[in-house]
Amino acid sequence: MATHKIHFLPAGQSVDVPTGALITDAVQEAQLEIQQPCGGQGRCGRCAVIVEGEGARRRSTIRISAEDIAAGYALACQTIIEGDLTVTIPEQEKIERRLVTDKTARKVELPFAYDPAVHQTVRAFQLELSPPSINDNLDDLSRLRKTLRQLGVEHLRTPVSVLRRMGETLRKTSWSPWVVLAFDAPDSDSAELIDIQADPIHLYGLALDIGTTTVTAFLVDLTSGEVKNQASEYNGQIARGEDVISRIVFASKGDGLQKLYDLVRETIDTLLDRLQKRTGVSPQQIYKVSVAGNTTMMHLFLGIPPESIRLTPYVPAANQPSTFRAHELDLNLYPLAQVDCLPAVASYVGADITAGVLASKLSDAPDLTLFIDVGTNGETVLGTNEWMVTCACSAGPAFEGAGVIDGMRATLGAIEEVWVNTNTYEPTIRVIGSKKPVGICGSGLISLLAELFVTGVVDRAGNFKLELDTPRVRQGQYGPEYVVVWGKETGHGRDIALNKVDVDNLMRAKAAIYAGFSVLADSVGVELEDVQQMLVGGAFGKYINVENAIKIGLLPDLPWDRFNFLGNTSVLGSYMALLSYDARQQIRAIAEKMTYVELSADNTFYDAFTAALFLPHTEINRFPSVAEIWERYSTKKGTPGD
Amino acid sequence: MATHKIHFLPAGQSVDVPTGALITDAVQEAQLEIQQPCGGQGRCGRCAVIVEGEGARRRSTIRISAEDIAAGYALACQTIIEGDLTVTIPEQEKIERRLVTDKTARKVELPFAYDPAVHQTVRAFQLELSPPSINDNLDDLSRLRKTLRQLGVEHLRTPVSVLRRMGETLRKTSWSPWVVLAFDAPDSDSAELIDIQADPIHLYGLALDIGTTTVTAFLVDLTSGEVKNQASEYNGQIARGEDVISRIVFASKGDGLQKLYDLVRETIDTLLDRLQKRTGVSPQQIYKVSVAGNTTMMHLFLGIPPESIRLTPYVPAANQPSTFRAHELDLNLYPLAQVDCLPAVASYVGADITAGVLASKLSDAPDLTLFIDVGTNGETVLGTNEWMVTCACSAGPAFEGAGVIDGMRATLGAIEEVWVNTNTYEPTIRVIGSKKPVGICGSGLISLLAELFVTGVVDRAGNFKLELDTPRVRQGQYGPEYVVVWGKETGHGRDIALNKVDVDNLMRAKAAIYAGFSVLADSVGVELEDVQQMLVGGAFGKYINVENAIKIGLLPDLPWDRFNFLGNTSVLGSYMALLSYDARQQIRAIAEKMTYVELSADNTFYDAFTAALFLPHTEINRFPSVAEIWERYSTKKGTPGD
Repeated sequence: MATHKIHFLPAGQSVDVPTGALITDAVQEAQLEIQQPCGGQGRCGRCAVIVEGEGARRRSTIRISAEDIAAGYALACQTIIEGDLTVTIPEQEKIERRLVTDKTARKVELPFAYDPAVHQTVRAFQLELSPPSINDNLDDLSRLRKTLRQLGVEHLRTPVSVLRRMGETLRKTSWSPWVVLAFDAPDSDSAELIDIQADPIHLYGLALDIGTTTVTAFLVDLTSGEVKNQASEYNGQIARGEDVISRIVFASKGDGLQKLYDLVRETIDTLLDRLQKRTGVSPQQIYKVSVAGNTTMMHLFLGIPPESIRLTPYVPAANQPSTFRAHELDLNLYPLAQVDCLPAVASYVGADITAGVLASKLSDAPDLTLFIDVGTNGETVLGTNEWMVTCACSAGPAFEGAGVIDGMRATLGAIEEVWVNTNTYEPTIRVIGSKKPVGICGSGLISLLAELFVTGVVDRAGNFKLELDTPRVRQGQYGPEYVVVWGKETGHGRDIALNKVDVDNLMRAKAAIYAGFSVLADSVGVELEDVQQMLVGGAFGKYINVENAIKIGLLPDLPWDRFNFLGNTSVLGSYMALLSYDARQQIRAIAEKMTYVELSADNTFYDAFTAALFLPHTEINRFPSVAEIWERYSTKKGTPGD
Repeated sequence: MATHKIHFLPAGQSVDVPTGALITDAVQEAQLEIQQPCGGQGRCGRCAVIVEGEGARRRSTIRISAEDIAAGYALACQTIIEGDLTVTIPEQEKIERRLVTDKTARKVELPFAYDPAVHQTVRAFQLELSPPSINDNLDDLSRLRKTLRQLGVEHLRTPVSVLRRMGETLRKTSWSPWVVLAFDAPDSDSAELIDIQADPIHLYGLALDIGTTTVTAFLVDLTSGEVKNQASEYNGQIARGEDVISRIVFASKGDGLQKLYDLVRETIDTLLDRLQKRTGVSPQQIYKVSVAGNTTMMHLFLGIPPESIRLTPYVPAANQPSTFRAHELDLNLYPLAQVDCLPAVASYVGADITAGVLASKLSDAPDLTLFIDVGTNGETVLGTNEWMVTCACSAGPAFEGAGVIDGMRATLGAIEEVWVNTNTYEPTIRVIGSKKPVGICGSGLISLLAELFVTGVVDRAGNFKLELDTPRVRQGQYGPEYVVVWGKETGHGRDIALNKVDVDNLMRAKAAIYAGFSVLADSVGVELEDVQQMLVGGAFGKYINVENAIKIGLLPDLPWDRFNFLGNTSVLGSYMALLSYDARQQIRAIAEKMTYVELSADNTFYDAFTAALFLPHTEINRFPSVAEIWERYSTKKGTPGD
């Protein structure tokens, strides 16, 4: 069989491998390091290398953009060697920067003045025991209990795995061991002895947000309360369905549930591995975990069949699943780490929302406040510190770039903002990473639709005006469309456009969210204009332009100073619950306080949805600021955008 | 290679196997069934078969008596085929009967009027839930909690494994599932949901006594409280040391602890298997286990290093290890079965004694009571319902047949009672199973020593009188000895005798036990003759002849009506704790009430022990009834036994 020479850069080594080998085989042969967190399945994109030479055949191009391919990138695990090659293995940090899920990571402030003795239930400290003697022959455990009793611990639970190493540790430390206690509450006299060690123990915790699309983890120092590092990664389950419904369907077939259970663990392992590399903190040092996520994600995380969530009457198995030990959940952490799953309200209002409400401070708000977690499910909460109503309105994935031909996630090469010239209809765009564009992400789509609307390229029903004097509005493959970037300027050489079907999908998404607002307001007899504070959560929510969101009728027409864009409120709430027992109790109280409005119960939602299927809305007087702009164009040009 | 024909009876089949195969290989080849609970290691004796023909070479004869060998028995797993054979596989029941550990099994009375609602913490019942609807969309778990709250369960813990099948079970049963709750106490409002099933659940429990030599299990119907069946088996750890000290030494080396942990599990599996065969009750139907056993056995059962037990100041790791789940302890039961390890007092006074004290009713006794668990450790308790002192006196294994040349366990062929003719010194014997004798068991040894003493064959110091006119008293291989059975009448063709070394071992054993009594009585300033009730526990204790035991000074010289032989009090106490939370609490109270007297603390025990190294004792006036017999012989014959 023919062999080929593979030359590695920057290492400078060469190896010979036979035809048909993968680049990862050659990397191994050369004894070089390459990241393969997905195990060489081409899912994670971490093994991207730059390939020079003709002898490379790409088996799959998942997780690698057209632009990257053009630049010579290939996934090492998916590339078959058929000739001599020069392969450059980028520095790991460079690869990581390619993945944009971490791009929003920034320093997280301590949410309150953290004092472990006041807030924390898991604590580590050193004990001083009196040694046994022939006249004081208490057994080790009773001796330990006695000392702990002097410290206020009356009831101590002792897992057998700790008992098994207690005796040796006590003697090795001359009766001065380090222990970790998990208290029932910060001031409780009941605790579980979850560790005993000879060396000083520094406690770490993990705040998790398991999103349908993205899993985010904060590694937290439980002594200072600070976020030591954070990481995000696409939820490995995406390959088995992009939204919760398709995940539920997948889980109900064969060993689907087990597969999804395993996949999210792989994702968490990837995050833990990355956090360990950055901080040196081992997952075995993590003693407490707080988990937020929507109800379906929580079921899948726990391995609980989610089937009933999608079947009438839409009832989940468990909204308040309580606390487990890490090893019971097959998590690669300290085995007795406490894993606290935050409470949900209903099938479509999960712990991501209860945690988010805490983080958003809606539950402290004296005035009428509206909270939305912008995402696939569009969960919305309306209320004050005294009452809350909530619903979920199935916006669909359009704002996340799915269901739109040239849509994409907010990664490198995504158009994130568009301005359309009122006279020429020529666009100006801003692209993430200053690269050639390859698609449009959520904020770009909102911006584009708003611009097309106010410049009159589309009318209030979302129909394109083909009669306009510009080559950018044309009859395309999928019907009328507007070309945002011509093929010669894109990363992949094809035109980037928004067509009628895309617009309809975006209209349905924004209409669903706005209809959710309306139904909630109606359900308690208030007007949306009375909302004093509009809180927008979701990693994506951080990048929405208020003006554009109002223009298309996605967000209600309120003065801009009432808007607050908070980022990932779910992980923030999870972080607060990790630090503070009181915060955890507040999330529970929030879950119990929320009244869930089931939108499928009658026609109210459908009517509101239909009314919102216009730009900005059938009743334009609901959007006075938009009406004003609209009026201006009408006055100036006759027909808007004419 | 030569092959040989193996003909199986009663099946009538024949197979050809090569030279060097084991009989178990041939059994497998013939697709016949044979029990091998020890996995073919020659330890359990269950694969005994009758072999005819010359081509059988026995590799080991463990667990098979000389008599059985003479009758053609061989262990199938230890017998190498070197020629044609006819092999009879006995019926399983016949094999079981060969093992005498079950021979004491008899119907166990209910210890009190059992009412699960009053006494039991683990209960099964069917629930009736209202089904969810669009207007009542509580999640499944909250719905279950709501119904349970109406039944008084305010706090419900829900293991994730139960949550995983809850939803399906609720729907399958039209919201009428069977559940098993483990309450914190019978009248507690806190419980753990340990099972949910569609079909009616009948609860069983297991009362275990893990002895150094024998493991005993009661399979208990938790509805009626009755013992459905019971089984005993040698503790598989015996091969790694006959007493607790040698087990501790073994556990401290390499993977010794793991081996002992595994071995006792194999024994428990054997018992479970036998119980299932007899009753049809699967180990998966066992939801609660109560475990008694000495402190070392409890440590080994839990996998806790027992090292500190044998090192000064003799401190165990845990006297009150609390409750675990079956799967945490690698027990092949219902995984969430509650395993309750009963509390110990000290390194050498374990849960077998605290449970035994409850079963013996010493803790209810208004008058001075002495309790002894006759066995290797000789644990003794003196007290009343108000106070208790306890000690352990290392009697050694002599009364269990070890440390005596012709000693053996109380199995078939063991001499269990001996009478010696005062004039001719000729013995009359009674043998277990009416077989030819092969050795002497504990009760036989006591009986024999008592007879040799009162007939004057040995003097008060235990020295043989070689001058007596009988061939039975002679100088043997190990010094002076008395021949109990001539070789021509024994199962193995060799003489069965008791020699001076044997007598010394027996004297030390009985002296240690009596010294324990004395030290305890001295420690609280009472006289042994004031003891109003003498309770004797231990499976072996059931067969002791009071008169003989007093004659050799093993038991104090009290009127016979004060003696009560109770059998295995440890398993009985474990059974009571299994049934009743109150009994369990009483055992805890007993453990806390007992004052442990450490015999190695000063010379008191050694002095008492030395004083007891005579027949019956240095101070014969402590044994007036024995003194009287002694006097009679002295008067009649000059020197006793002359």
